[in-house]
Amino acid sequence: MTSLASLKSKQVRLIKRPIGVATADVWQFTEEAVADPGPGGIVVKTLALSIDPAMRGWMNEGKSYIPPVELGAVMRAGGIGRVVESHNDNYKEGDIVIGGLDVQEYASFPEKSIKRSGITKVDLRAGSETQWLNVLGMPGMTGYFGLMDVGQPNLTKQGETVVVSGAAGAVGQTVGQLAKIKGCRVVGIAGGKEKCDWVVKELGFDACIDYKASPSSVKAGLKQHCPEGVDVYFDNVGGEILDTVLTRINKKARIIICGAISQYNNTTAVNGPKNYLSLLVNRARMEGIVVFDYADRYHLAVTEMAGYLRDGKMKSKEDVVTGIEKFPEALNMLFEGKNFGKLVLRVASA
Amino acid sequence: MTSLASLKSKQVRLIKRPIGVATADVWQFTEEAVADPGPGGIVVKTLALSIDPAMRGWMNEGKSYIPPVELGAVMRAGGIGRVVESHNDNYKEGDIVIGGLDVQEYASFPEKSIKRSGITKVDLRAGSETQWLNVLGMPGMTGYFGLMDVGQPNLTKQGETVVVSGAAGAVGQTVGQLAKIKGCRVVGIAGGKEKCDWVVKELGFDACIDYKASPSSVKAGLKQHCPEGVDVYFDNVGGEILDTVLTRINKKARIIICGAISQYNNTTAVNGPKNYLSLLVNRARMEGIVVFDYADRYHLAVTEMAGYLRDGKMKSKEDVVTGIEKFPEALNMLFEGKNFGKLVLRVASA
Repeated sequence: MTSLASLKSKQVRLIKRPIGVATADVWQFTEEAVADPGPGGIVVKTLALSIDPAMRGWMNEGKSYIPPVELGAVMRAGGIGRVVESHNDNYKEGDIVIGGLDVQEYASFPEKSIKRSGITKVDLRAGSETQWLNVLGMPGMTGYFGLMDVGQPNLTKQGETVVVSGAAGAVGQTVGQLAKIKGCRVVGIAGGKEKCDWVVKELGFDACIDYKASPSSVKAGLKQHCPEGVDVYFDNVGGEILDTVLTRINKKARIIICGAISQYNNTTAVNGPKNYLSLLVNRARMEGIVVFDYADRYHLAVTEMAGYLRDGKMKSKEDVVTGIEKFPEALNMLFEGKNFGKLVLRVASA
Repeated sequence: MTSLASLKSKQVRLIKRPIGVATADVWQFTEEAVADPGPGGIVVKTLALSIDPAMRGWMNEGKSYIPPVELGAVMRAGGIGRVVESHNDNYKEGDIVIGGLDVQEYASFPEKSIKRSGITKVDLRAGSETQWLNVLGMPGMTGYFGLMDVGQPNLTKQGETVVVSGAAGAVGQTVGQLAKIKGCRVVGIAGGKEKCDWVVKELGFDACIDYKASPSSVKAGLKQHCPEGVDVYFDNVGGEILDTVLTRINKKARIIICGAISQYNNTTAVNGPKNYLSLLVNRARMEGIVVFDYADRYHLAVTEMAGYLRDGKMKSKEDVVTGIEKFPEALNMLFEGKNFGKLVLRVASA
């Protein structure tokens, strides 16, 4: 058993609410002794953290689907880690777990907070550490239940057209590959030729539109690649891309609102979808997804997706930044579209 | 049988596409002999026409749920009339019918266009002529299927809160009264004290918010009258009211997009709902309704609603403007919120 007394843990704390892009001064780096988790508790050493667009929302004041991170608190983050101390019969030293580890080197969980933090043992034979933060983790679960439960692609009428933005991102790669596996026509939207090429050549999407290519590339691309219109649109970005897709949806189309990365750093109001009346004309639906609602079915989706990974039907790509001190810049990479694949912060190698 | 040769019919034709509010110069008044409907056809004398917000959309160029009215054509309108000549065994002189009569004194239907124009015999014992354009007509059907099929109020969990805008209008009065009958808590939004009082005192809504009372009256009113949030919002208006309701919706709320009367005369882009990410936070849904999709079930809804009218459980109010020459100003009344109840244009008394 590791001697807790000797363990120090670095943390990244939120000390100021950002306006727009999160600048360096909203963060504070601290180092503290690891707290004793007490009877029934465990201590987890963080191996890698998931860097997600949703984090930007957690930093704002105000009501959302979960409370904001309190000022002074360690920044919230999901991650994968190794149990280094256990006073709980359900966990033993060496177990690999995922859950709410937050941006710190060690997370100490009193017994009552183990479940609340979503700590779950995982099997590295099903996927690598970083895949457990990607296809087998929250992004994968979001893509899975967003597409299947909210988007409801018609699986008997093969060939429905699914469009997904942020196609090279964590959620996007899951959504697109899963839709292909289920028999849909899949068109991605991503930023830059490199990402688009990868999405088509490696992931097998039918096409991918480079929204950075020109101001009209999304409009032209949808016309070219979705000749029969759009049945399901999985939206990770909001803004102008959402507006453009709304002009191409089919009757009874389903739009899954998963995020709006284009709007998260706005200092003014969000741009609402000005073409929303297309929902009326097309008797279409726009619906939000929050992955936590599906927690009791994660295990089913993980089993299915691990099978696809094993059989080579699904691939995953992670973009790994190393070092807890890189957290602030890693987060901002997301909003500049600089990451290629699921963005992961490697905190410790083992 | 009326002598067709002697019959002249006045028409109102669309000769120009309006930009913003429809001005007098977009209309042309003509008078022509009534066309012979030919074998199997019928001639219908228009008694009253339904004046609807959707008409403004039909006047615009471009793709919608039905093609725009062609320039030079008689303006499209639904109405109620009396068969004055029939060469068809299914209709006899004196039958009362509803359907696409258009803005003219007499409508001549060749056999093949009777069905296409939605001509349906009606029974004046179930409702008056104007009620057949209101609760028993398109607005009533829109309210019925929009609320029940798209809004899906939870009828086992009594007391869900339904909010409806345009509450004193044709669709709004149906939605609100029906939701009350089904056991929901109902809050209307309407313009002016007189309409709000009527909605509460005559129609039995639990409350009605006067959006004209002050710039913050909708926000304050929702807070006061929907202490447990909004489960179903039936939107007839769009714009700021939609945005404000979005801040008060409950988890898994359903928003029915029926229209956006605040936006139809815009000369610039529609204002998209800038709070649409509330759909994400609340895992809520926004979905369009087009009444024509439910044509095969109209008869069921009419039977149910006629029963409510007969039993006094449902009331209806029509605002009647008389004279075909008043059509242009009647249409504009809608967008100024000047009508009180379903707006009807009386074209002939019998």
